[in-house]
Amino acid sequence: MELINHLKWRYATKKYTTEKISDDKIDQLVEAINLSASSCGIQPYRVLVISNPELRAQLGAGSFNGQILNSSHLLVFAAHKEISTAYIEEYIQMAEKQRNLPQGAMDDLKNKLIGYFSANTQQENAIWATKQAYIGLGTALLAAAELKIDSTPMEGFDAQQFDEVLGLTAKGLQAAVILSVGYRDAENDYMANLPKVRLPIEEFAAFVA
Amino acid sequence: MELINHLKWRYATKKYTTEKISDDKIDQLVEAINLSASSCGIQPYRVLVISNPELRAQLGAGSFNGQILNSSHLLVFAAHKEISTAYIEEYIQMAEKQRNLPQGAMDDLKNKLIGYFSANTQQENAIWATKQAYIGLGTALLAAAELKIDSTPMEGFDAQQFDEVLGLTAKGLQAAVILSVGYRDAENDYMANLPKVRLPIEEFAAFVA
Repeated sequence: MELINHLKWRYATKKYTTEKISDDKIDQLVEAINLSASSCGIQPYRVLVISNPELRAQLGAGSFNGQILNSSHLLVFAAHKEISTAYIEEYIQMAEKQRNLPQGAMDDLKNKLIGYFSANTQQENAIWATKQAYIGLGTALLAAAELKIDSTPMEGFDAQQFDEVLGLTAKGLQAAVILSVGYRDAENDYMANLPKVRLPIEEFAAFVA
Repeated sequence: MELINHLKWRYATKKYTTEKISDDKIDQLVEAINLSASSCGIQPYRVLVISNPELRAQLGAGSFNGQILNSSHLLVFAAHKEISTAYIEEYIQMAEKQRNLPQGAMDDLKNKLIGYFSANTQQENAIWATKQAYIGLGTALLAAAELKIDSTPMEGFDAQQFDEVLGLTAKGLQAAVILSVGYRDAENDYMANLPKVRLPIEEFAAFVA
């Protein structure tokens, strides 16, 4: 199974070379993330792809994660802080267009979604949106591996700093998780050759027949 | 890119045939999930693979998701409700063994993790664990697609019912998200041939050079 080979090949890269990833590969990576599943299909997060070194230095200031600056690109998964009625209406309108349906054809789903999300607290919706971003992160890790791009998923960053510097708050977004991508500097990365640690299958999974 | 083909092939299946997935394919699917990345590498969730029809009928009682019962297998992603010091200690001990390191070699990381998780609230750790399960869900969706297995990720289930019926609470776990797998009944599934709805790339992603 190709995917298992990809999963075994990847690791949380600590040190990158200075080689840049081609635009074509970055585009494929982003396309894969955009095709990821999300609950109710409404993609409640966005991805910022940052190569600008000054901006990355600013984002990484004070962080122990040197990869925020020292990698080819930095991807920021930014989740919606609220799932507003306006957001759902726009999304359903887009869906009707993409499916060549008359306006209003998906009203039942629209009203169901509006009812569901407006009954939740803002915090519940924000957490929900973040979880969907993690499905996208799962895709990104595998897409990168297929492209032989190394990556480092990171939670240890100053989310408030990211939200301010990137102007996310004004867009109703918040940084949920970040991913640096580039090419491993295997000789200088102590993690590059360490065996992957995983639970034995019989501890990780239970089969109920 | 193979992964993009897999992503385009899959959809949230509404109707399955009665065909069962082979044990060999289920094993590959579970192996892929177990190989997924998790923050700090500590895999704070487990996967239950349920084929038993009586149990699934009980789990799905009252749910609008008929796929809980009517699919080949049901996967339950169950996340740890707390990240205890004992859990971290056991995990690090296992990591030292798998890496052929002397006991205590990873004490620095162990103490850092214990300090980090014990400073969080129980709810923060529970949410964190759930997010990691969603990375595994992202892997599962793609692994299933490579195996030409159809799937349906679901959040609309009674988590409390799942926790009780499956005895998760006693194990410190809670159902985070579920995934039915099987083979699509394309003729009787209205979703099977609907175009996938996705944001235009320029709305989904922003590039900052």
